[in-house]
Amino acid sequence: MSQPFMFEKPIGMRDTLPAYYQTKRSVRDQMEEEIGSWGYLPIETPALEYYDTVGHASAILDQQLFKLLDQQGNTLVLRPDMTAPIARVAASSLKDHTFPLRLSYHTNVFRAQQREGGRPAEFEQMGVELVGDDTASADGEVIALMIDALKAAGLKDFQIAVGHIGYVNALLLDVVGNEERAGTLRRFLYEKNYVGFKHHVESLDLSSIDEKRLLGLLKLRGGSEKLNEAEELVYNGDAAKALDNLRQLWDVLEGYGVTEHIKLDFNLVMHMSYYTGVVFEGYGSRLGFPLSSGGRYDELLQKFNRPAQATGFGIRLDLLVEALGQTKQQPQQTCILFSKERRKEAIEEAKQQREQGKRVVLQDLQGVGNVDEWSGAFSEVLSFINNKKGDSNE
Amino acid sequence: MSQPFMFEKPIGMRDTLPAYYQTKRSVRDQMEEEIGSWGYLPIETPALEYYDTVGHASAILDQQLFKLLDQQGNTLVLRPDMTAPIARVAASSLKDHTFPLRLSYHTNVFRAQQREGGRPAEFEQMGVELVGDDTASADGEVIALMIDALKAAGLKDFQIAVGHIGYVNALLLDVVGNEERAGTLRRFLYEKNYVGFKHHVESLDLSSIDEKRLLGLLKLRGGSEKLNEAEELVYNGDAAKALDNLRQLWDVLEGYGVTEHIKLDFNLVMHMSYYTGVVFEGYGSRLGFPLSSGGRYDELLQKFNRPAQATGFGIRLDLLVEALGQTKQQPQQTCILFSKERRKEAIEEAKQQREQGKRVVLQDLQGVGNVDEWSGAFSEVLSFINNKKGDSNE
Repeated sequence: MSQPFMFEKPIGMRDTLPAYYQTKRSVRDQMEEEIGSWGYLPIETPALEYYDTVGHASAILDQQLFKLLDQQGNTLVLRPDMTAPIARVAASSLKDHTFPLRLSYHTNVFRAQQREGGRPAEFEQMGVELVGDDTASADGEVIALMIDALKAAGLKDFQIAVGHIGYVNALLLDVVGNEERAGTLRRFLYEKNYVGFKHHVESLDLSSIDEKRLLGLLKLRGGSEKLNEAEELVYNGDAAKALDNLRQLWDVLEGYGVTEHIKLDFNLVMHMSYYTGVVFEGYGSRLGFPLSSGGRYDELLQKFNRPAQATGFGIRLDLLVEALGQTKQQPQQTCILFSKERRKEAIEEAKQQREQGKRVVLQDLQGVGNVDEWSGAFSEVLSFINNKKGDSNE
Repeated sequence: MSQPFMFEKPIGMRDTLPAYYQTKRSVRDQMEEEIGSWGYLPIETPALEYYDTVGHASAILDQQLFKLLDQQGNTLVLRPDMTAPIARVAASSLKDHTFPLRLSYHTNVFRAQQREGGRPAEFEQMGVELVGDDTASADGEVIALMIDALKAAGLKDFQIAVGHIGYVNALLLDVVGNEERAGTLRRFLYEKNYVGFKHHVESLDLSSIDEKRLLGLLKLRGGSEKLNEAEELVYNGDAAKALDNLRQLWDVLEGYGVTEHIKLDFNLVMHMSYYTGVVFEGYGSRLGFPLSSGGRYDELLQKFNRPAQATGFGIRLDLLVEALGQTKQQPQQTCILFSKERRKEAIEEAKQQREQGKRVVLQDLQGVGNVDEWSGAFSEVLSFINNKKGDSNE
């Protein structure tokens, strides 16, 4: 074994110690219960998938994929997201289930990192996919559910930015005329590099009206009044369809009573290339980056030969826990120390306390090196040693 | 995308659909609660580890490891078990915690398979490690806890085979004289190929007494009376130590009142090369293979520079669910179908029912193709359509 690696983990890989585990676990349980109450059924998919199916459909940058060869020479990937695997399942194992399908998941996803110190290479994601429903009600349901799940986790101060990729594309294409030039601008938006976007727009050979229209896009952030402002910048078939979508969605979200958490953001461009309509990101007040995201992807399922419109969201547990800004305390534990002769008595005592719901560590005195140091971690220590009566020394 | 792989998964990889997920989940929750009540703290480790640390220490056959190269050219492995990663954590992130440490885990582990149809390449394992305690109380605790966890999961008819690798080695070495020849015999035992063992023993040039001693090993299965029989076959320093260990362990297990589930099995040889003492396997009555296993590994921690004796067990969730022989029913779900004009009303109704603990799917009529077929999956269907009053048509 080469010494330098003795305790090391691969880049971006983390251990989860008990206190953090328990925080994450209680957040997860609360959200799972909420998601379950909306009728979403949980599924799991394998960590490894064929690159040619899910790896390819996931549209995560190739350099972010963990790839390996199986013994038959096929390229496998560690799943970089859950949307593509769920699309595969909806089109295969669940192909006899009538749409719409409501599925939920809670799993780790993987993204290879170039260097240490930054992003995790493995993180826990919880989310839902609503497959086979093209209505604004479906778009609104997943957003409202995401909001309720975040609330169930205890998040108080958060906002959901909602945009529409169809509107962005309609405006950019209308002004710059071709997909390549639109793509350059879209990339600035995806990177949230608004200064870069502005400079690039100014560098283009545009009429002052067109320049104003593109720069106007950056101001399209706010409440439902932005829908009318958006209409002024572009109004062709695709833009009209997108705006009609968003108006209906707003109506649905009002029905759910969640618009206080919603900010329309027409700049929103997501990295997942499969989104086709409404897209959204959730922000906690302490974080500068989204802790959840989602949107409509109406073209992914046809890659698996079962065409269907779909929408869904994913919440990153690590970022949510960070946004909650609290680490759960270790649970209170009692320790029962015993010497061999009184083992049976100690076992009985532990059993009774456990039955009462207590967490009890039962410890043979002979198995501890430094008793004082060790027992300091417990809220209560009971001794069953030699012939003395079991007394408590806290 | 190459067509043949469209819906396929890599060899040994499985999807977990909702009904099975829920069965596994409830089994897992019951066991986690039991394990938590014994004061074991849960941790998680990354799916990927360096081959030079954990991959190597795990001692799973190399051909069963999923290996990949990271972007720096290091070899990574998908964790093949949890014992080695926990040893790494105990010796690094938890190095300031006084021993004994009680840790639990619940995770997926990976074993590459050569062909489809047989074993899973990814499976869920739950277990504990008790690190830094060399007493028989510790050996007994993990076995008693494994029994309680299996009972908590609802398993009724099961047995734990308990052996001692030190005894097997002492007998084999005493008779055949060297490690190489002992290794050949041990391999037959590991493969549970007792016919092969017998033929091999008969092919060796042994005195009839020695032949009898080796064949006598095969009969050492039963209750505590086998301890004396074992003593008759070999009684040197190592054998005496192993038998003394087992006698103390039996005493501990009697203290826990669990010996009805225990069968001493002196033939037991486990595949994990790091075991050094007591070893055990759990069998459900429906299965011909172990659904759980564990043992003492007193030399693994020193590979991570924090020498410590340790013991632990792992339970395979898939095999346990198979042994339980039951698949949980889908939960009962109510469906509320609505038309756009009555969406708000429907949302209110869903909210109220969810608050009462019901699972409620809220569905826009426009989003369903075949309403009759789709709604057949629900235990109750409520309609909020047009101006009719919401009435129930089950």
